[in-house]
Amino acid sequence: MGETRFVRHIALFRWKEGARPDPDKVARELAAIAEGTNALHFEAGPALGLGHPTYDFAVVADFATAEDYLAYREEPNHRSYVNDVLRPAAADVAAMQIASQVSGDSRDV
Amino acid sequence: MGETRFVRHIALFRWKEGARPDPDKVARELAAIAEGTNALHFEAGPALGLGHPTYDFAVVADFATAEDYLAYREEPNHRSYVNDVLRPAAADVAAMQIASQVSGDSRDV
Repeated sequence: MGETRFVRHIALFRWKEGARPDPDKVARELAAIAEGTNALHFEAGPALGLGHPTYDFAVVADFATAEDYLAYREEPNHRSYVNDVLRPAAADVAAMQIASQVSGDSRDV
Repeated sequence: MGETRFVRHIALFRWKEGARPDPDKVARELAAIAEGTNALHFEAGPALGLGHPTYDFAVVADFATAEDYLAYREEPNHRSYVNDVLRPAAADVAAMQIASQVSGDSRDV
């Protein structure tokens, strides 16, 4: 296969003091929302605490196209979850998208 | 296969005004360094500019174990590249590691 390119969305969250949501719950809820979109691969989870992580929680989601990512971003359940759950608890959010060589949604590993 | 877990290292960089390194050069140089380590999968690149990215450049690297990630982090070439190239140019760095279900290093996509 030639070089396959995907859109990889990355969002890191640093929680406010005393506003630490349950990471497994957030991961489950976000994954359920992502299932209703064209996300090829979705994962989320807390920092493993190796060394000095500067953020607490990460989302990595892969999409075949920019349009699929933008549709995920604007999806009503996702929008309200970001506005009602994530943003109120986050002191900082570091988010961007890159062109990824391969989606994490492969099966042979 | 049961649920395979990898260590996914994520580092996002926001460059200082006027200190914007060439992203392709940085991606190539970091990838060359990663090749000398146990990184299973390595990718790096500039923000695609979809919407309002809050950071400019991302590294996503997968490792089979925490030890492999820590060895990568302490690898002399990596250490000096971070200290001599990345940190002087970065206004902010958002970095953490999560337990990833699947490494991006699979071939069947």
